[in-house]
Order: sequence, then structure tokens, then C-alpha cells
Amino acid sequence: MVTPLRGRDELDVEGLERLIERILNGGVDGLFILGTTGEGPSLSYRLRRELIERTCRQVRARVPVLVGITDAAFIESVNLARHAAAAGADALVLAPPFYFPEGQPELQEYLDHLVAELPLPLFLYNMPTNTKVQYEPETLRRAMDSPHVVGLKDSSGDMNYFQHALVLLKRRPDWSLFIGPEELLAEAVSVGGHGGVPGGANVFPKLYVQLCTAARNGDVARSRQLHDQVMRISGSLYQIGRHPSAIIKGIKCALACLGICNDFMAEPFHRFRAEERGRVERCLPELTAQVERLVANHQPGFPQ
Amino acid sequence: MVTPLRGRDELDVEGLERLIERILNGGVDGLFILGTTGEGPSLSYRLRRELIERTCRQVRARVPVLVGITDAAFIESVNLARHAAAAGADALVLAPPFYFPEGQPELQEYLDHLVAELPLPLFLYNMPTNTKVQYEPETLRRAMDSPHVVGLKDSSGDMNYFQHALVLLKRRPDWSLFIGPEELLAEAVSVGGHGGVPGGANVFPKLYVQLCTAARNGDVARSRQLHDQVMRISGSLYQIGRHPSAIIKGIKCALACLGICNDFMAEPFHRFRAEERGRVERCLPELTAQVERLVANHQPGFPQ
Amino acid sequence: MVTPLRGRDELDVEGLERLIERILNGGVDGLFILGTTGEGPSLSYRLRRELIERTCRQVRARVPVLVGITDAAFIESVNLARHAAAAGADALVLAPPFYFPEGQPELQEYLDHLVAELPLPLFLYNMPTNTKVQYEPETLRRAMDSPHVVGLKDSSGDMNYFQHALVLLKRRPDWSLFIGPEELLAEAVSVGGHGGVPGGANVFPKLYVQLCTAARNGDVARSRQLHDQVMRISGSLYQIGRHPSAIIKGIKCALACLGICNDFMAEPFHRFRAEERGRVERCLPELTAQVERLVANHQPGFPQ
Amino acid sequence: MVTPLRGRDELDVEGLERLIERILNGGVDGLFILGTTGEGPSLSYRLRRELIERTCRQVRARVPVLVGITDAAFIESVNLARHAAAAGADALVLAPPFYFPEGQPELQEYLDHLVAELPLPLFLYNMPTNTKVQYEPETLRRAMDSPHVVGLKDSSGDMNYFQHALVLLKRRPDWSLFIGPEELLAEAVSVGGHGGVPGGANVFPKLYVQLCTAARNGDVARSRQLHDQVMRISGSLYQIGRHPSAIIKGIKCALACLGICNDFMAEPFHRFRAEERGRVERCLPELTAQVERLVANHQPGFPQ
Repeated sequence: MVTPLRGRDELDVEGLERLIERILNGGVDGLFILGTTGEGPSLSYRLRRELIERTCRQVRARVPVLVGITDAAFIESVNLARHAAAAGADALVLAPPFYFPEGQPELQEYLDHLVAELPLPLFLYNMPTNTKVQYEPETLRRAMDSPHVVGLKDSSGDMNYFQHALVLLKRRPDWSLFIGPEELLAEAVSVGGHGGVPGGANVFPKLYVQLCTAARNGDVARSRQLHDQVMRISGSLYQIGRHPSAIIKGIKCALACLGICNDFMAEPFHRFRAEERGRVERCLPELTAQVERLVANHQPGFPQ
Repeated sequence: MVTPLRGRDELDVEGLERLIERILNGGVDGLFILGTTGEGPSLSYRLRRELIERTCRQVRARVPVLVGITDAAFIESVNLARHAAAAGADALVLAPPFYFPEGQPELQEYLDHLVAELPLPLFLYNMPTNTKVQYEPETLRRAMDSPHVVGLKDSSGDMNYFQHALVLLKRRPDWSLFIGPEELLAEAVSVGGHGGVPGGANVFPKLYVQLCTAARNGDVARSRQLHDQVMRISGSLYQIGRHPSAIIKGIKCALACLGICNDFMAEPFHRFRAEERGRVERCLPELTAQVERLVANHQPGFPQ
Repeated sequence: MVTPLRGRDELDVEGLERLIERILNGGVDGLFILGTTGEGPSLSYRLRRELIERTCRQVRARVPVLVGITDAAFIESVNLARHAAAAGADALVLAPPFYFPEGQPELQEYLDHLVAELPLPLFLYNMPTNTKVQYEPETLRRAMDSPHVVGLKDSSGDMNYFQHALVLLKRRPDWSLFIGPEELLAEAVSVGGHGGVPGGANVFPKLYVQLCTAARNGDVARSRQLHDQVMRISGSLYQIGRHPSAIIKGIKCALACLGICNDFMAEPFHRFRAEERGRVERCLPELTAQVERLVANHQPGFPQ
Repeated sequence: MVTPLRGRDELDVEGLERLIERILNGGVDGLFILGTTGEGPSLSYRLRRELIERTCRQVRARVPVLVGITDAAFIESVNLARHAAAAGADALVLAPPFYFPEGQPELQEYLDHLVAELPLPLFLYNMPTNTKVQYEPETLRRAMDSPHVVGLKDSSGDMNYFQHALVLLKRRPDWSLFIGPEELLAEAVSVGGHGGVPGGANVFPKLYVQLCTAARNGDVARSRQLHDQVMRISGSLYQIGRHPSAIIKGIKCALACLGICNDFMAEPFHRFRAEERGRVERCLPELTAQVERLVANHQPGFPQ
């Protein structure tokens, strides 16, 4: 979930409520806040705590809430984790500490120490583009020895890594393996992954939910049809900005155009300016119509 | 300066005092805390504030205190900056926000916004190994338009970049240009840099101070003699660990062996264990004797 | 196909014949020589020409022969291409020139110039690990304007890239899109790719042929069963060496253990020494038995 | 030295003669052909052999001729080396084989095998931007055990690496250590390097020769004056193209503007087109005048 902001250190409270209801109404299995798309590491701790509280209160246990606690400082991750537990969150999500390029033995020891302090189950979050370091397979394997670690979100985009993670899962069939990039959601689920954490689900939650269901059911025709739509979104809405931030900016801008929430962004980013916003406004109606046609009168669970 | 720690979130207060006195006694021109060697991003904000206060109180304006405010979150950088100003620090040091790989225009706008909020002069800190993004020359050039930005510490190790920064300095002769890696200190000063921020000065402050002086005075023979010693330290004390953290671990371990301060490290790192500590203990006496011979009976300011 | 060698600049002629027959007997749709697994860029031009001739003569048009002409020097690529055409090869395969890190406009112009000189249809070969530069989507799109370019082998391992290539294929439905890494073969074909160029097919050709067929037919259960075996090979035979060359060395060593051909390698590589060879010998019987059980009494074309 | 070309596979013979005379007239200590700036890996072997022969014949032993034999194929490096020896060249220059990302033990064994086949002394050439792999310090140290390896040209731009190479040189005081990037020439020589291989010396040989002399003599004032001019060239002539090829294109274009030789380039590059050539024409007169003022009425060998 993106973090709706009204200003530099101010939540867009009404926008947040609308966004949560829209996403939940789309049928998602859970809500992940304070991840990369949520601009987690760019937000003050005060605002992160407020977001955790408001989100948990709004969701009211309708779906599990997963809270990102990734931080360069060990203690701040622990602090956030405790706050999340107190607010009623269900699980934590952790990418490697992202300032120092730590070695894998260092990362393994860090995990051992951190997991011992956490009050909730933990998902690992593999995001090497931003953290430089990734959870190497051997580190995953060791993490599986801890009952408190319950899954992995892999945003590396490296399907060879994902395949190796799938093989490792035989040791922990209770683990959940999620894919980050939505362009890979269909194939990740079709090869045995459990689901995805697609940023686009902020805008079109039903599309990704139905895609997941189709892929899980082995409904290849339906899965391809929905995947093609994911690729159209990826090929238009996400291509408007010039920097890697283009995806988050595109999603927030689309939500603003749809009247869901404000598109203010935390530094070092800035929302799209008039020219880019114009391009979002021009591509959005067609994308919306396409998605609505696709997800309408579809009986979930009954492959066509 | 390294951050002496007694435990996970506890300063080694006596060690900090001894360390500051040792470094100041070495004749340094300033003290930089909460940088990379200071494990700044790994420390809780509470501990960072305590370190700022204790350091400023101990230094008592004998030399300028520079405080690292690098953070993934804009607001937290501002918070630290205000705390540093209130504690009596003299300047701030900032590497790019290090979670998102922001584009240069994004980084430029971030700088514009942040500098407007800062109560003290700012040094830029180029550290691409850890932040992924660097201050590209065009971004440096634009930063020179702000009177509140007063210098650059370049830890890229890329002397071509340093040379281009030197050329840019013609527009802002009041800027200070410092080099990070101590292996490049002699040459950086000899080509016109103003000084360095060497981690090794925690252990052997006089060596680096005298090297800087010699290089500034164009005393090539003396400069080479001292530089050779810097390379001996780099080739032994810094080669003991297996990961990039080896340098900080080596420095902290040497300080512990010398009885200056505790070598506890913040996660994701761990101090050297017995085997590595043994190697530090074995190489330290000779390094210390070499340095003492070199810096003794040398008349600072009078090239030999 | 690997290149069987008897010495530094000498083909293992009998081994080559046995290897070709074994692979063709496995039911492959084509044979790709002088690629990465074929150590193409490490071989003298004389030996490359001899290999082209002998292979074409041995294959006798039973399947198409594709010849790698990747080279840092334009003229040498043209020379190889002409030789391949004269020897009766069917198509050419080209990764970007791999010494200079050329820009995409430079690569596009290079392609324009080179395609004009080629006597046979061309497949692009995306291999950024080795060539540094990849064919960016815009370069692919432009290459589709040339009727002489007929497909892409993508060895990037980046399925997001592969997905975008699949979308581009709508403009050229006659193109073939192949995947390099065999760990991704099942999913690449299941999402619409046309096949793969798996190095493991040197050793177990039927396994990869049947996997391709199953994935193409949408036979998910069979596809997963065969894919699991591909992952077992990848997790054992390819993990024995320490460097990226481990895969090629493992394949050549397995072929030598099976009595197919010599495992001599062109510099800068060296065949496995006794210790690693012992490990290959130990894992090979089980892998072979597993593969044979899997591919036996399977009726190709009739999903089980 | 750049390689003057008249067409895709044709030397500009008269241009080559003029260029050699111009460079030798500048007082250089040696001539390096078929390096990166010489587009070595982009040229056909036929043309490389012709260039070697013509250059050796033209130089007539006035200075040593060093010939680049870097190649992905071992045998082709040996072939070029033998041709160079037969033509009367003095030494060979070798970067690591640049297709496969070989490990250091593989690179060490490759060097052992290759040196055994070479008829002339060898300089190592560190160029990681183009070859991906570099000669790590341990590999340098091992290469020093061979009397046939006589030096290193370091084009990494990493002065920390250069400093470590300088320390290693204590084991082989007969080795020569040269720097690649001309922006680092002054400092590399001032810290103990023996010289440089600056591409700009194709255009302004006297400038770089005098800079080397000044830096060697410890003439800091003169060295800085000449270095500032090197930085002006680097900041104008080398900034005109958009890709890393901009430096070679700028040098070749300047030589064409000065009537020395043709600026045709081997694929994958293309000479500057009208717009960029216009910019070269506009900056060249001032650069030339500046250089001529600087190098005129200077008594070489007598520091001012």
C-alpha cells in the first residue's frame, strides 16, 4: 500500500481510509504497509507509528496487516515492531539493513539477534536494488530454522532466485513465498509461489486478486488474459517518469486522479508535475475501462 | 570518529572521553561524528543524540564538531540537525538518502528543500559504495549556489571525480574539499585538496595530521615517508576481517587493545572474535612503534 | 552445445560426433554452436571454422544449425557468418560486441550495419553478464523492423525483460523467443516463450525436450515434475566449481564421465581437477537414473 | 595511439605516418598501439597485423613499441604476440580475457600459460570497465614472480588500487607502473608512478610529456599548471559525446580537424557527426593555443 500524505510529515487521513476500503473491497488476502511502494524508509518514525495505528484500526482484522520494519538501525526496527504488535498488526516484513553492505554471515547473525527481539512473525523481504545486499539462499535456509520467520517476499525480479527459494520451501511447507514485481505475478504463482505484493493493486485490486486466483487454479487462458492487462499497465502508467521512482509516482498520481487520495510524496521524491500528470490522466480512462471489463461478471473460483 | 559502545544501545562514556582527548591531543583540525566509521546509520536516534551532546560538551569548542545527519527520512535528518545545533555543533555532514536510488534531479531538489531547513552549514558527503547514488558534478555545481553548503567530503575513492570537484572549486574558493580514503590522503592534499577524514586517525591521530601538513607544505619526502606508514596500516590492520566492515572492526579492535575504548559494534556488525583479535594484537605493537618513531621529534610546520 | 576439445587448439572429433548424435537423438529442434556454453569467444577462428564445418556435415540438415558469431570486431563476425553460410548453417546468433560498453544508439547502428552484411537470418542473443550491454527493449523494437532478424535468445535471467520482449513480439509474430537459463525454461514457455537453449541438454537432451513439450501443451503437472529434475541438476551438478564457469565445467565433466567427449577447456578455464571430478562422479549416477525414470515410457505429445 | 582508419577495414596509411611523427616529435618515451583508445578489439586481425608492421617500420626503433594483444581467445593473443615480435615490437600489453568473468585463480593460471608462450616482455593492463575482471593485488603479486612480466598499466581510475600496486613494486623495482586516465597522471607520477599512457597525447604529446617530467622532478608549480590544462581538455573535448566512447571520438575528431588523420571509427562506433564535430572545431583553437603557450619556451629537464 502506498502511504497517502497531505504534506511533508502529515498523513492524508481521509485518503488513507478510502484507499484501505478500496483495496479490501478488491478482495485482497492481506495488507502490507511501510514497504518500498509505501515509501517506508522516507517517513518519519512519528508518521510511521501513526500510519500503523490508523491502518490497524481501519482494517479491524478483516485481513492480516503486515508492517515493514526495515531500518539501518537495529533498535529502530525493534521499536517499530513493538509498536506494530501493540497496534494489533499481524506480521512484520524486513529487508536487510541498507546502509552498510554487510556480508552474509553478518546478515545471518543480525537476523538471529533481531528475530529474538520481535513480538510478531517475520517475513523476509528481498529487495537488492535498494538494499544492495540480498538474502542469499544459504541465509534463507538458515532463517528457515527459526519458527518465527514465516515467509519471503522476493522483489529481486530474479526468477532463478525465486526458483531456488521454491526448492528450499520443501523444508518449510508452512512458509509463504510472495513475488514483488507484478509483471512476474502470473508466472510466479503458476510455478508454485503463493501470491504477490503488487503495487498496482493500490489502483486495481481486483485485477491482481483475480490474476492470483486464476494462476493458482491453473486457469492458463484467464491468467494470460489478466497478465496481458498487467503488462499494459506496466507499459504505460509506470513508464511516465524518468527515474526508478516512476512506478510509485505513477501509482500515487493515478490514485489522485481517481479521487482516492493525495499524491504528495516524501522527499527525496516529488509528485508528478503538470506534464506527467497530464499523461497519467490521458492513459488512465482506457486502463480503467479495460480492467473493469476484465474483472466484471467474472465468477471468482470458477475458472472459465 | 568511531562511536565507542558498551552495549546494543549504550555509549561507552568513559571510552568516548578518552578517545576524544586522544584525537584532539593529536592535533586534528576538527572532529566528525556519526559518519560511516562512526556507524551513524546503525545507531538509535536516542543514542545519536546522546553522542552529539556528550561530544560537544567534551570538545568544548577546542575544534569544530561536524555531525553526520545522513538519513533515508528527510524529517529525521532535520531533527538530528536541530539537535546538533542546540548542542553546540559547528556543521552538518550529509550523504544522499540511501534507500531509494534517486535520480540527480530528485537529489538536487531534495538538497534544496533540506538546506532550507538546516540551522548549520552543510558539508556534502560523497559515499557511493553505501548510498548507491553519488553527488554528480552537476549536482555539486548547483549546490555551490547555496551559501549554506560549504564543502565536500569525497569518499568515492575516484580521484577523477575528486579532480573534477577541484576544478569546480574555482567557483567557491571558500569551500573545503576533503578526501575520505586515507590511502589517498597524501595525493589528495598534494593536488590541492584541503584535508582528509581518515578513520585511522582514531588510532594514530598524529600520523595523519603530520601527513596532511607535509602534503600541504609540498614536503614530498616527508609526505611519502608518512604515506608509506599509512599504507602499512592499510595493508595489515585493515585486512583482517573478510567483509567491507573490516576497516571499522580493525580500528575499534585496535582502540580496545590500546585500552582507549570498548570495541562493541552496533548490528549488523559484531566486534572481532578471538582469532581476529589475536591478529590485531600481533600487528599493533609494530605499527605503534613505527608511528611513534615517525611522528616523534618532528617539528610540525618545519619541513625536513 | 559445448565444444569438445582434445587440446588447446584441437577439436575432439570423435567426441563431437558422439555428442551431436546424442543430442539429436534426444529430439531437439535445433543445435546452437559457438555460444557461451560452447566457449565460442575463447576459441581460435581456425577452430571455430572447423567446428562449423564438422557440425554442419554431421547434422546433415536433420535440424537447423545456429552459429554464434558474437565478436568484439565487426569484420570477424562477418567472416564467421560467411563461413557458416558456406558450410550450410541455417542461422546466426549475435550478442552485442563485448569489449566497449557501447550506448544503445551505437548498438542499434552496429546492428543495422552488420545485418546488411549477413548471408543468413539472425537471432539476437541477450547476455548482459558477459557483454555488459544488453539489447534494451527499444533496440529490440527497432531490430524487429528488419526481416533478417528473426528472434531472440534471452539469457539475462530477468523475466521482467522477457515479459516485455513477449509484449513486443505482437509486432513480429514470426519471431522466436528463447530463454537461456534452464531453471526458467518451464515458466518461460508456459508464459508464451517458444523454447530454450539449455546447456544441460548436452547431457540430458530428452529431459529438456519433454519439459518444453509439456510446458507448451499446458501440462502443468508433467511440466513441474520435469522442472523439479532440472532444479536438482542445477542444485548439484552446477554447484561444484567456485566461479561462474562452474556450469560449463560441470557439463563438460559429466559428458567426459559418461564417455561422450573430452572435458578439456579453452583458456581462461581449466577442466575440473580430481576433487571436483570426484564430486561429479558421485552425483551423476543418481541424476542419470532420475532422468531416465522420468523420460522413459512417456508418450511425447500426450500429456499425462 | 589511436588507429587512423580510412574505412571499415582499411588503415589511413598517410594519417598513420603523420600521427606517429607528431607523437614522436612530442618527445614520448614509447608508443602503445592496439589498446582501448586504439580500438584494438574492434579491428580485424588482418588490420591489426598491418598496423603492427607499419608502426614498427615507421618508428624505426626510435622509441619502444608496445603492442596490445588482449583477446577473448588465448590462441589469438599468442598469434598477435608472435606477429609483433617478428615485426620488431618491443613489448606486449595484455588486459584479462574479456568475455567470461573469470575468477582470479583462473586468471592466474591463464597468465601462467600465456606468458610461457610469449616471445616478448609483457605489461599487464588493468581495465575493469571494459574487461569486468581486474588483476587483483594477489594476482599482481604472483605475476611478479615471472621475469617476463615487466610492468602494469592501470586504467581502473582507482588510486587506492594504484597505491597498493606501488607498495607491491618493492618486490620488483624493475617493474614500470603506468597510469591510464590522464586526469590522474600528475598525481600518479608524483606519488611514485613511472608515467602514463594518456590518450590526449595523440593530440598534444608535448603537454603530457612535460607534465610527466615536471611531476617526476617534483616541480609542483609547473606540474599543477600543466595538469590544469589537462583538466581543461578533459572538461571540454572529452565531454562532447554522450557515451563512454566520447573520449576516443573526441580525440580522433580533433586529429581530423588538425589535418593529422582520418576520424573514421571501427564499429560499434561512428565518428562524430556534424553537430558534435562543430563543437570540437569550436573548442579546439583555444585548447591548442593554451597548450602551445604552456609548452613553448619551456626548457625540458630544468624545472622552473
